[in-house]
Formats: sequence, structure tokens, C-alpha cells
Amino acid sequence: MAAYSIGVDLGGTNLRAAVISENGEILDKLSAETDVAGGREAVIAGIVKSIISLRDRQSGANFAGVGIGVPGFIVLEKGLVLNSNNLPFLNNFPLRDAIEKDLGAQVILENDANAAALGEKWMGAGKEVDDLVLLTLGTGIGGGIISGGRVLHGFMGMAGELGHLTVVPNGNPCGCGNIGCMEKHASATAIESMAKLMSLGDNLTSLDVYNLAKGGEERAKRCFEAMGSALGIGLAMLVNTFNFPLYLLSGGALAAWEFFAPAMLAELNKRSYTFQNTPTRVEKAILGNQAGLYGAGYLPFLYTTKK
Amino acid sequence: MAAYSIGVDLGGTNLRAAVISENGEILDKLSAETDVAGGREAVIAGIVKSIISLRDRQSGANFAGVGIGVPGFIVLEKGLVLNSNNLPFLNNFPLRDAIEKDLGAQVILENDANAAALGEKWMGAGKEVDDLVLLTLGTGIGGGIISGGRVLHGFMGMAGELGHLTVVPNGNPCGCGNIGCMEKHASATAIESMAKLMSLGDNLTSLDVYNLAKGGEERAKRCFEAMGSALGIGLAMLVNTFNFPLYLLSGGALAAWEFFAPAMLAELNKRSYTFQNTPTRVEKAILGNQAGLYGAGYLPFLYTTKK
Repeated sequence: MAAYSIGVDLGGTNLRAAVISENGEILDKLSAETDVAGGREAVIAGIVKSIISLRDRQSGANFAGVGIGVPGFIVLEKGLVLNSNNLPFLNNFPLRDAIEKDLGAQVILENDANAAALGEKWMGAGKEVDDLVLLTLGTGIGGGIISGGRVLHGFMGMAGELGHLTVVPNGNPCGCGNIGCMEKHASATAIESMAKLMSLGDNLTSLDVYNLAKGGEERAKRCFEAMGSALGIGLAMLVNTFNFPLYLLSGGALAAWEFFAPAMLAELNKRSYTFQNTPTRVEKAILGNQAGLYGAGYLPFLYTTKK
Repeated sequence: MAAYSIGVDLGGTNLRAAVISENGEILDKLSAETDVAGGREAVIAGIVKSIISLRDRQSGANFAGVGIGVPGFIVLEKGLVLNSNNLPFLNNFPLRDAIEKDLGAQVILENDANAAALGEKWMGAGKEVDDLVLLTLGTGIGGGIISGGRVLHGFMGMAGELGHLTVVPNGNPCGCGNIGCMEKHASATAIESMAKLMSLGDNLTSLDVYNLAKGGEERAKRCFEAMGSALGIGLAMLVNTFNFPLYLLSGGALAAWEFFAPAMLAELNKRSYTFQNTPTRVEKAILGNQAGLYGAGYLPFLYTTKK
């Protein structure tokens, strides 16, 4: 009998869930608001309700379990959310056990960027490789590392904090305590901050800056070039470290690829002998905001025993 | 019947080989000069002769095979040395097959820094972990990454080129084409170059600079502090990327630990939230120049099939 899983992408704003078949087909899905104002119990109730709705609509197939992508650090073995900036009421909360109890089915948690990387590996731009790195360019920069077809977690589940690679040692300060983190020089927020420094306007979004660049505004283009250089320094370190065949970028900032990619690739080429001498690919991810949903849905198929 | 392997550490100056038991005991060993002047055939003959001498002295145990640590890039599947700065006549040469033919036994090649990392994992400072990174601080800086008990190779065998992480984006130029590589700011050679810039003397070795620092010379201490900061920036990137429990340093420069480690750990602490919040260890490797020999000897036990 064919098996299906349910993948959940728990965001700070939206909760999305999908029924996914073993071969990666989305059979059913729904989305709802994450009831952040309602607090922990309301958010958990929302997750459980979504999963049950989807499960009730399935018949004649084996239910393999649930995977959930969560924005924050996860302690896998314990099913614990260590720290979530967007959903702080989940900090140090054993989310997995709480959902399993209400649901009566196996649940696997994963960090959202890791889930997105896994989704791209399973059904996206990384389908044909077993090793890749994904950078999600948004308000911050998240990272997910897939090694040997699985998420690289590290001993405390904190591997892949790639937004906090130092790319400008004396650059912009970061909330993590460091100075010059990649996410302070190459995220959408960094673009907005650079636009302000370039006197392009005080409250421009990164999309506004992109539109200015498209209109020919040189200062807007400089912002994306600076972003590209910072990304290139970070990517060079990743390429020199991993020698993986594929590095993917995702997130809204991809729209500005034409403005940041040339500087990014030039910097990467200068800073990585490995990049110069191997057929390493740096490409756009293709699943968009569905990547995390695919990755979450893949978890029950990937792990035969609870992890 | 007990099994043994033969590990070979092929250096630009010395060739060392040892008989190693399954539980990591060195049963016999020898060393010779690497006959670089004699060229490729002479070097290969020296390797084969060493291995045969050692094997002939064993009896009553199963011979598991040979592992050889080579300074250079290795294409594992092909047993090919892609590029060796110290032994350029091996470039693009199928070294594994040449030795297997003369020897009539299975041979596995590995990059020397990777072999050292594997040796520390097997019988050294990393015995109790499955995941670690080793940095070898010498003329340059080499790197070896052990993930899940095995060497992380990347798709072309070039993973772990950690000496070429960018730590000072506008720093010293490197032969690899980059600017500000860690090995141009934190190797023994970097110490010597800083000593010259500090007017400490033109031809000082890093050991001379160390002795000056011990004698209280402030400028010599500054050199080691700069080295420590550069190492700390690089280590922070590795800790943020891998979240491994253990990072090891080896090489002659370890003698100056008291002078570079405080700056290194301060920089690492500042630049890694993960380091601040997990029991991550940064320690001295303990096998010294035997690490590569242990790692090479471990290869036949680690790989049941030829790789």
C-alpha cells in the first residue's frame, strides 16, 4: 500500500501543511494563520487540527508520520525547541511530545532552513546530488547543509548557522554578538540598511531598492553589488570547506539575482581555488516557499526510527 | 586471527611507515628519506620497499592492507594524486595502482591532513567523538574534517581546504589567488613575515619569534596575538558551520599556545554564538607527527571495500 506523510511548515505568520506521497507528490494541502497572539497552546492546537484535517481526508494509504519545520534551534533527540525568535513561547518546550500526545502519531521536528535544504534535495534543485548547502536570503540568512543525503546537525543541532559566518571582520554588528556576519551584509535587511546609508530613502524595502536598481539608479546597484560581494566571501568559505557540487540560494532577494550575482561569482572565483578548478554550481533553489513543506514531509520517510 | 595494517606517511622529506594492529597499537616501524631527487620511480620504490620490509617481519596475523597519507589533492576513487606541491612528479599520477602492482596488496590513498585528522579520531585527542575538525599549523595550514567517523571528502576530494578560508578580506595575498587566507595570517610562515614587518629581524624562524616572546619582547607577542585572532575568526566560521564538539590544532606552532590561544579564544567567543552556548572544545592534538601514520594505518580497517 502506498504511504504518505504530512509535512508542516510552522512560520511566525503562516502555518502550512501538506499530504505528500512517498515519491514527493503533494496530494492535499491547507494553510492557516499561526495564532501567535493565542500563545503556545493555541499554536499547538492549530498544528494538531491541521494535521488531523488532512489525515481524515486520506484513505487507503499508510500514514508514515509527521515532519514539522520550526523556525529556531531544535534538539532533535529530545524533540525540544531550544530557541525560536519568532515563536518565543516555544523556547525550551518539548514540542514534539506535546503534538505526539494530542495526535497519537510519530512526529519529527527540524529547523526550518534545514527542512528547506532537505526539500530542495528531495524534490527540488538538488534532486540529483547527495551533498548541498542552501542559503535562505530573507530578513536574516539561514543555512541548511545536506551531507550524504541527510541534514548535518552537529552535536547540539546547531550546525548550519551560516548567516553568522564572518564576512567583514570589522563590519556591521549583529545581535548574535559578532561583527560582520554575512546576514548583516547580504540579507534583505542589509539591503534596506545600505539604501538608507546611500541616501536612497529612509523606509525603502529591499523590493523598492530592487526597483530603483532596475530603473538605473546607480546607488541602488551598488547596494546589490556589496551584497553580492559579501555572499561571495561566505560562499568561498563554504566551497573551500565542503567541496560540495551544489550551493543553492533561495528567498525573496533572488529576484535581484541580475544585480548581485555578478559580484558574488567574481568574489567567489577570486577566493576559492576549489571553485576555479571544479565544476561547482551556485544556483537558484526552485521550490520557493514550498521547500520547507517538502523537506518536512520527507522526514518521516528518511528516518525509519524516531530521531 | 588478529589483523594488522601498514600505514605510510609520505612527506616531502621523510617517508615513515608502521605496522599497526586493529586496536591501534604500533607493532613495528621504520623511517627513511623520501628520495625526491631520484624522482617518481625512486619514491615509489622506496614506499614499496618499506612496506615489504615491514610485512616480511610480521607473521601469524592477517594483513588488512596499506594506507598512505600523501601531501596533495587525492582523487580517491581513482587512486590518483591530482596535485602535490612537495612531490610535483606525482601530479596526475595513478599512485595507488602503481604501488598495488608492485606490492600485490590493497592500497588506499588519503590526503595527509585528512589522514592526521583520522589518526587523532582513532587513537588521539578525538578518540571519544565521531565528528571533529583538525587544523595543522605549519608552513601553511592544512585541514581535515571527520564527520560521522569518516573523512569528509567532497565530490572532488578537495574538502577541508581550511587554510584558505578568508579571515582578513583585504589582508595578505595567497598563492591560491585569494587575499587574506587564514594560512597567510596564522601559519608559522605568517609569524615569520609579521616578525619582519615588526622589525624584529629579517630571517627569524617562528621558533626565534617564540623565544623572543618568551623573553618578554612585546612586538613578538603582538605577532602571536595577530595569529591567534586570525585563527579565532576561522574557527568561529567552522564552529558556526559544523557545530562539532571538537576542534584540534596540531603542528610546531602549538609550542606558542600561551601566546596565541588567548586572542584566538577571545575572537572565537566573540564571533560564535554557538561556541558561547555549547560545550565546544578547542584543544591541542596529541599524536604529533604520528597522527598521519595512525590515520593511514586506520584506512584499511575503515574501508571494507576499496575506495
